[in-house]
Amino acid sequence: MLKVGYIGLGIMGKSMARNILHGGYPVMVHNRSREIVKELVSEGATEAFSPAEVAANTDVVFTNLPDSPDVLNVVFGEKGISEGGKPGLIYVDHSTIKPAVSRQIYEKLAEKGIKSLDAPVSGGDIGAKQGTLTIMVGGDDFILEKVKPILSLCGKTITYVGGPGTGQIAKAANQIMVAAQMVAMAELLIFSQKAGADCKKVVEAIKAGAAQCWTLDVKPQRLFEGNREPGFKAYLQAKDLNIIMETAREYGIPLPSAAIDAQLYNAMLQLGNGQQDNSAIISVIEQLAGVHLNESNH
Amino acid sequence: MLKVGYIGLGIMGKSMARNILHGGYPVMVHNRSREIVKELVSEGATEAFSPAEVAANTDVVFTNLPDSPDVLNVVFGEKGISEGGKPGLIYVDHSTIKPAVSRQIYEKLAEKGIKSLDAPVSGGDIGAKQGTLTIMVGGDDFILEKVKPILSLCGKTITYVGGPGTGQIAKAANQIMVAAQMVAMAELLIFSQKAGADCKKVVEAIKAGAAQCWTLDVKPQRLFEGNREPGFKAYLQAKDLNIIMETAREYGIPLPSAAIDAQLYNAMLQLGNGQQDNSAIISVIEQLAGVHLNESNH
Repeated sequence: MLKVGYIGLGIMGKSMARNILHGGYPVMVHNRSREIVKELVSEGATEAFSPAEVAANTDVVFTNLPDSPDVLNVVFGEKGISEGGKPGLIYVDHSTIKPAVSRQIYEKLAEKGIKSLDAPVSGGDIGAKQGTLTIMVGGDDFILEKVKPILSLCGKTITYVGGPGTGQIAKAANQIMVAAQMVAMAELLIFSQKAGADCKKVVEAIKAGAAQCWTLDVKPQRLFEGNREPGFKAYLQAKDLNIIMETAREYGIPLPSAAIDAQLYNAMLQLGNGQQDNSAIISVIEQLAGVHLNESNH
Repeated sequence: MLKVGYIGLGIMGKSMARNILHGGYPVMVHNRSREIVKELVSEGATEAFSPAEVAANTDVVFTNLPDSPDVLNVVFGEKGISEGGKPGLIYVDHSTIKPAVSRQIYEKLAEKGIKSLDAPVSGGDIGAKQGTLTIMVGGDDFILEKVKPILSLCGKTITYVGGPGTGQIAKAANQIMVAAQMVAMAELLIFSQKAGADCKKVVEAIKAGAAQCWTLDVKPQRLFEGNREPGFKAYLQAKDLNIIMETAREYGIPLPSAAIDAQLYNAMLQLGNGQQDNSAIISVIEQLAGVHLNESNH
C-alpha cells in the first residue's frame, strides 16, 4: 500500500487528507498552522515538520495550497518537496494555480525523477467532506492510474484531460462558467426585483428551462434565506479569475465576459466581502443598483 | 370547449397552434405569410384574414410575434384584436417583448373588457414541437386557470409569476442567464483550445461539477460536430438582450455582464451570423482570438 503525504490542510485539504486516512492509507501530514496537524495525528496520521520530510518518507505527496507562489515555495523552497523527494516519488497538486506554473513544476521535478500531476478540484467544502469532488487531471495518464484509488476517496468524477497543465486549464474553464453564472444570477435577481416581480417566482419559472444550472438550483434559495456564508469564498473566485485573465493574456485570448466578471469580483473584495460565498457577488450588483435583495422574499 | 384563435405562425407559433389543434380544440388561424395558414387548414384549422376576424370569432386568442411593435400592431392596429374582440375575450401573448409594453396592453385591453396574459416561452423549436416548453405567465391568476388546459398542450412547466408584465420579466431574467452561459461556453472553449487542451476533454471534466448547466450538456457537442444551425436564432437572442438593456435602463438597473453579452451578440449580427444558433456566439470569440474552434475535435 502506497504511503501518502499531505501538505496544506485548509478547508479543502483537511477533509481530503482525512478521507484518505480513513480510507486506510498511512498518511503523513504537514501544515504551517499546527492545530489541524494535531487533530489529524489524533485520528492516526503521522506528523512532519517540513515538505522535505514528507517527501522523504512517502510514495505520493499531495498539496492543497492557495496560489502559485505557495506551491512554488512548498515544492522548490528550502526544505521543499524537491529537496526531500527521491526518484520515483509521485507529486499530485490539488491547488488551483496558473497552467504555466504547473507545466514548469512538471518539467523541473521530472529532472529529479519525480512525476507530477496537476489535479485541481471543484465542488467546495461539502464535496471535499463527502468525497464527491470533481477532479481535473493533467500530466501522464499512467501516473494517474497509479494514484486513482487514492483520488477516488476524494472525488466522484476524475477526468484525465491531457498533458501537464491541462488539469489547470480545465479548472480555469470551469471557473469561467461558474463566475458567469454567479454574476448572471445576481443580475437577474436584482433585475427581477427592481422591475417589479417576485424573485422567488422568477427563479421557479426559469430553473427548469434553457437557463437550468447547478447555480440556480442551489444558490438563490441561500440568498433568499439571507445566507451569504461560504461555500466557496469570493476571494478565491477572484484569484481564479485573475489566473484566467493572466493566462488568457499570455496565450492571446480575449475574454470580454470573464474580464467583466473578474472586475466585479475585484469590486466585491473592495466592499470587504471577500470572505463571503461566491454567490454573494450580488452585493456588488446591489451596490450598483442602490437596492438590497429582499430577503423576506421566501 | 373554448374556441381558440392563433396569430403568428412562425417556427414557434405553428408548432404550438398545431399542438392545440391536435389536442382537440377548434382553432382559427391568421398569419401574414399564407402558406402555413393553408397547411394548418388542411389539418383542420379555420382560416381568418385579420386579427380582428380571429378575435371576433373565438374565446381565447394567442399571438406569437417577433417583437413589441409587431404585437402592438396586431393588438391595436387597423383590424386588430382590440377592434374585433368582445368583452370576455382572453388574450394570451407568447411573444417575448418589453415588460412595459405587456403592462400597457393589459391596461388598454382591460378598458374593453378583454383580459390579457403575458406568457413568453423558453425551450426553442424542439420544445414547441414536443409541447415541452417552459411558460412564464404574468396577469391575473384566475384567467391563467381558465386557459391552463390549452397551455398544457404546449408546455410542461407553466409558472404564474405575478401581475401583468412579470411573465416578460421572468423571460428577460431567463435570457440574462442563457446569454451569460452561451458567452462563457464560447470563451472557455476557445480559452481551452488556445491554451493547449482538448476542448472535448475539458467539457467532459467540468460538465458534472459546479459549472453544470443545460448549455454545457447540449451545445458543445453540436459545435464539435460543426453544427451551428438553429435551435434558437442569434438575432432573437440579440433582440431579447436589447429588451433587457432597455428595461434595465428604465428601472435604473446596471447590468455589467448582460451589457457585454448584448454587445457580443450585436457583433455577431455584424459578422452576418444572426440566423445561426445562439451557441454560434463562439464565432465572435473566434474572430477576437484569431482562431477557429477545432471541429475535428470529437
